[in-house]
Amino acid sequence: MQKEAAPLQNDLLLRALRGEPVERPPVWMMRQAGRYLPDFRALRADYSFWQRCQTPELATEITVMPVDQVGVDAAIIFSDILVVPLAMGFEISLEPSEGPRVHNPVQGLADVQALRNEGVLDELGYVFRALEMTRTALAGRVPLIGFAGAPWTLLCYCVEGHGSKDFAKAKAFCFQHPQAAHALLEAFTRHTIAYLNAQIEAGAQVVQVFDSWAGLLGPQDFATFALPYLEAIVQGVKGAPVILFARGASYALPRLAQTGAAALALNWTDDPAQAREAAGKGITLQGNLDPAILLADPAYIHTRTLQMLEAFGAQRYIANLGHGILPNVPPDNARMFVETVKNWKP
Amino acid sequence: MQKEAAPLQNDLLLRALRGEPVERPPVWMMRQAGRYLPDFRALRADYSFWQRCQTPELATEITVMPVDQVGVDAAIIFSDILVVPLAMGFEISLEPSEGPRVHNPVQGLADVQALRNEGVLDELGYVFRALEMTRTALAGRVPLIGFAGAPWTLLCYCVEGHGSKDFAKAKAFCFQHPQAAHALLEAFTRHTIAYLNAQIEAGAQVVQVFDSWAGLLGPQDFATFALPYLEAIVQGVKGAPVILFARGASYALPRLAQTGAAALALNWTDDPAQAREAAGKGITLQGNLDPAILLADPAYIHTRTLQMLEAFGAQRYIANLGHGILPNVPPDNARMFVETVKNWKP
Repeated sequence: MQKEAAPLQNDLLLRALRGEPVERPPVWMMRQAGRYLPDFRALRADYSFWQRCQTPELATEITVMPVDQVGVDAAIIFSDILVVPLAMGFEISLEPSEGPRVHNPVQGLADVQALRNEGVLDELGYVFRALEMTRTALAGRVPLIGFAGAPWTLLCYCVEGHGSKDFAKAKAFCFQHPQAAHALLEAFTRHTIAYLNAQIEAGAQVVQVFDSWAGLLGPQDFATFALPYLEAIVQGVKGAPVILFARGASYALPRLAQTGAAALALNWTDDPAQAREAAGKGITLQGNLDPAILLADPAYIHTRTLQMLEAFGAQRYIANLGHGILPNVPPDNARMFVETVKNWKP
Repeated sequence: MQKEAAPLQNDLLLRALRGEPVERPPVWMMRQAGRYLPDFRALRADYSFWQRCQTPELATEITVMPVDQVGVDAAIIFSDILVVPLAMGFEISLEPSEGPRVHNPVQGLADVQALRNEGVLDELGYVFRALEMTRTALAGRVPLIGFAGAPWTLLCYCVEGHGSKDFAKAKAFCFQHPQAAHALLEAFTRHTIAYLNAQIEAGAQVVQVFDSWAGLLGPQDFATFALPYLEAIVQGVKGAPVILFARGASYALPRLAQTGAAALALNWTDDPAQAREAAGKGITLQGNLDPAILLADPAYIHTRTLQMLEAFGAQRYIANLGHGILPNVPPDNARMFVETVKNWKP
């Protein structure tokens, strides 16, 4: 933790995560740092994605943008879930039209054993530096969220080799080579725990774990290839609350609520009342407006956001989208979402 | 119905759909007609996708292949959900690498009103002819399943213009232009009811409705843009049992069970026991092995198939995959799935 950090002026997010009373729910948006903001798109013309991630000054500038321009209650560091596999020795490029591509995907146990095991954090100094710089730039206005990808989701990319609708190759690898799969998942878990703790040391006040492809696994396979590693990460992270986002794995909410996570993020397909019943009253929920709603007009966004707020209620709740904000959302629409939450009188 | 049809020798599927006792569950696979069979791939070299759909002799040959070669308990007519929009005036090509592309997507109410309204069934004679020929070719060995796409899923393609991970444009269209969206959904519903009834007239003994993108809608939007049209279709179809596949809309199982459908097909993310509890005891369930499991070795397929069978039980159940069979599945692996069901002693 930074010793000289400015006192936090807006602690709504931290209070919601601790289950303390709030006047209204905090609001932020997944993928809020970038994509839909014109200033971000301008930066994109001059720097590649990895350059933006790996240049702390740029990452800081992007991270703070939505706080200044949209008025969210938290900043989330601009980075990517694939920085951990990158640091472990995977060769990853981000193709503009098709997404990430891993050029040396894992094909067996030998590939897992050949990955970098020592010094992985040393490769990630640019993230820690960006967190420090962002804390300074924020000067206590809102808390700063760090994040990492969950082991199962990282495996999807690092076995399949690229994005996929079903990641069938990655799943078949797990079924066919369980020893190699678990070795890879364990390596991701070990480095992710160290990485998140180092993020907290560098200034992250909350961390979120993204298991974006959890919902591609059936309940039995989720219990085998995803849940144990999420549990290990939550147990291993110290010093900041953890938000778990096992996207689409609605069947797992009761189990996820027992991991020790401070909050569970919900996909937009989760009904608020059913999710609360499944997760119990002792945990904060985050979500879950369908990101496509932000493509409609502001009046419609206002109505649907109010419906969401009424359904979740004000306490133990963080207003957010059900998945990342879409790149073609007009900034005024994002502002309408945020303003509706901020002006809501529970 | 064909007057001279041969008596049915294997009526397991029909009995399971009526809730009558069976010695073992029937088994078939979504997308079983083609893709993974070498004989189908050979045909693909000589004929385009639409040629294969629109030439009754070819469609018949492909439909019967898995009965002969894999031993399934039902045939499903080789066709595509997009034949209805095609008959309504949408210009649709199937691109080998990217899937369907609609060249004149709907942009507003005027586009919906300009669609063909009369004579749509006349454009689909090739499907009815293929059903008649297939009934003759099957000679009563197994029942024949007809199918159609659900209105919401057809809207996805006909508004978005192509496949998509999230169909955000299609959803935004529904939010922004509800009148046009409902007019389009109603038109699809009307033609789909007539189409399915004509399929039954031509020889289909069961029909399945595929709402492949149901799970992209949250519960509220599913209730608005998908469910009423599924209900209307089930009510409007006469003379054969209806299987509803609202893929991924697990939250809707209790409502779907009340539509009058004979069976609900389940995605592989549905837990069998939870799905049974949600749907109640008065309806047949179909599914739900993860199609990626068929990429593993036969011993693994055997184990997972047995686990599935034990979880669902023998009665009021149709063994199937949780989504379409993948094109790269070795035929022996498909056979192992089918044989495991057929040799199971409940």
